Amino acid sequence: MPTVDVHTHMYPPALMSILRERKKVPYVRLFKDDPTSGERLVILPQEEAGSTARGRPIGPEYYDVAKKIAFMDLHKIDISVVSLANPWLDWLPAEEAAETARLVNDDVEKMCVDHEGRLYAFATLPLSASAHEVVREIQRLASLKHCRGVVIGTSGLGQGLDDSELDPIWQALEKHKMLVFLHPHYGLPSEVFGPRNCEYGHVLPLAMGFPLETTIAVTRMILSGIFDRFQDLNVLLAHSGGTLPFLAGRIESCIAHDAHLKKEGKISGRRGVWEVLKKNIYLDAVVYADVGLKAAIDASGADRYVWAYLQASFDFLTYIYRIMFGTDHPFFPPLQGEDDQWLSVTSNMAAIQGALGEGTKTAQDIMGDNAVRILRLGN
Amino acid sequence: MPTVDVHTHMYPPALMSILRERKKVPYVRLFKDDPTSGERLVILPQEEAGSTARGRPIGPEYYDVAKKIAFMDLHKIDISVVSLANPWLDWLPAEEAAETARLVNDDVEKMCVDHEGRLYAFATLPLSASAHEVVREIQRLASLKHCRGVVIGTSGLGQGLDDSELDPIWQALEKHKMLVFLHPHYGLPSEVFGPRNCEYGHVLPLAMGFPLETTIAVTRMILSGIFDRFQDLNVLLAHSGGTLPFLAGRIESCIAHDAHLKKEGKISGRRGVWEVLKKNIYLDAVVYADVGLKAAIDASGADRYVWAYLQASFDFLTYIYRIMFGTDHPFFPPLQGEDDQWLSVTSNMAAIQGALGEGTKTAQDIMGDNAVRILRLGN
Repeated sequence: MPTVDVHTHMYPPALMSILRERKKVPYVRLFKDDPTSGERLVILPQEEAGSTARGRPIGPEYYDVAKKIAFMDLHKIDISVVSLANPWLDWLPAEEAAETARLVNDDVEKMCVDHEGRLYAFATLPLSASAHEVVREIQRLASLKHCRGVVIGTSGLGQGLDDSELDPIWQALEKHKMLVFLHPHYGLPSEVFGPRNCEYGHVLPLAMGFPLETTIAVTRMILSGIFDRFQDLNVLLAHSGGTLPFLAGRIESCIAHDAHLKKEGKISGRRGVWEVLKKNIYLDAVVYADVGLKAAIDASGADRYVWAYLQASFDFLTYIYRIMFGTDHPFFPPLQGEDDQWLSVTSNMAAIQGALGEGTKTAQDIMGDNAVRILRLGN
Repeated sequence: MPTVDVHTHMYPPALMSILRERKKVPYVRLFKDDPTSGERLVILPQEEAGSTARGRPIGPEYYDVAKKIAFMDLHKIDISVVSLANPWLDWLPAEEAAETARLVNDDVEKMCVDHEGRLYAFATLPLSASAHEVVREIQRLASLKHCRGVVIGTSGLGQGLDDSELDPIWQALEKHKMLVFLHPHYGLPSEVFGPRNCEYGHVLPLAMGFPLETTIAVTRMILSGIFDRFQDLNVLLAHSGGTLPFLAGRIESCIAHDAHLKKEGKISGRRGVWEVLKKNIYLDAVVYADVGLKAAIDASGADRYVWAYLQASFDFLTYIYRIMFGTDHPFFPPLQGEDDQWLSVTSNMAAIQGALGEGTKTAQDIMGDNAVRILRLGN
């Protein structure tokens, strides 16, 4: 019964070299007026302008695979499916994107090979290049032994994920059975958080901007009919779907009551939010509370039933929830006690136990067995 | 076992006269190039600019109390606690605000008197006047027989609800045991919904912008310490808390991991999100799905326990969930079949039955008994 972390980030060494050489966001730099703070990673423009902190400290936990393995061992995580952290490669000049993506994806694959059995990966697409180049990279990735999907943000080729220019990309991902790990990056404009935003540190944009960005992006995908055109496309939503499990009912109701959609004949005959949740969407368990986790389980439903003829038990019928444990490492480190288990990890583990009971089969499924099945780990 | 609707709006006749006389948003007007569309209410600037529709039709269901009673009868709703719909009176010139608020609140009170036992009200505050004027109106409202609280948006006196200038207002509301019905209005900037927003009608801003506005507002209230300074202040959050039940764990985690809040000594020693949810916050049941409703119930918890000495039953211990049925009438009317029960109402009724079982005591509590107790209806 392995523990598998499907939401865990790295900036592999090949990417760190690029980020260190850059002179603007996103980049890794030293601040000369604050020499003790060391290297800092600035991934969002507002992190440079804010009064509370400039970027975030970036130590080896972000790029040294030995640190990832040590973190896994500390938390008894057997397998990590690593993905680049935001902003991935969206910012690359078009002419460099495809080659850099190959370089970075191969660097990650090497890491997985060097730690056989411990690491798998979601690769990164050269989205600032053309759809054609992206499809080429997907075809290449299909041959990498440890690649199980791709991580993407919400901007797509620049016009969002509901842009029909992405159709060849969805088609290629569906064909190669690659899971799309959809992860927020841009959040919401800072003014929506009010004039006292900075007094509350990063709480409002991190706690609310990110989840809403994910919810908007996946709802746009649903409304634009992507899951009708690509019925076997599978998406893993970061942070338990942002807010989708809670808002799915309201979204469906707003669709059913929208005069414009009715006039356009777009209300019925399409895969609805609940159907997409139960057929195309997987969720991570990065929600930090059993209340949210229960909603995520209820919303995404059970994947399939296994009739266990050969087991000498009464568990003939098995529900496989479409949820998989994650940590968001190396983000949300403890503010003190670095050697202890991380609160951000233990609170997600506790949420699973709180929602499903300690040591139950369904809890263990979410902790790892679901990921092994869904991502075909170990094969 | 009455059915009580705590989320139901009206523009009383006194306010309609004002809205008809105005020449800019918010206002009620005819569009000369579309004479068949009748009077239309424009409450948000983007409703005038959008390509799909200009404002919304405003018929007597918005201002004629006979229509409200007919709607209640159709859906077997015994009591409605009516509130003004957004944008309330936030837009009034300061010098007119206090007098207009008195006029409008008295008009609503008269409506309740004329329909004794069927109608109660959340009043509206003259927030564009001064805090002093607002407190005076609260004191006056406390003597109105049918007033059970106030409805407010998220802007407060202009700087949001975490503005300490509001403290005398919270103090007066707490003193007079008036429930604060917090309701969204501004949503989110339209650009966050992407370039194809208009193709999806009003779905994205209504389904996601509103709930997030509520979530941000109440989180700012919590972070600024309002519920520490006014520990008996009670707030009813529209739309089952926006997204608060689902995001509460993430918000708490972001607080616990925020270096700025730690440096300022603001992490511990304050009422946390979960404590505020269980002590200060009530939720309506306007969430359109049992998944969301279950999360709302789990998050807001049980209000108190009643040891029923005198009942000859085994129900000695009674959990009173902090949730109350609502409809959002007259918004979300059916797109066809006006004489039938409204889908937006029946889906919320079905969510309660789905979450708690048809005809169970807890379902009946949410349908009405909770509101009777919490709002002291019938006294």
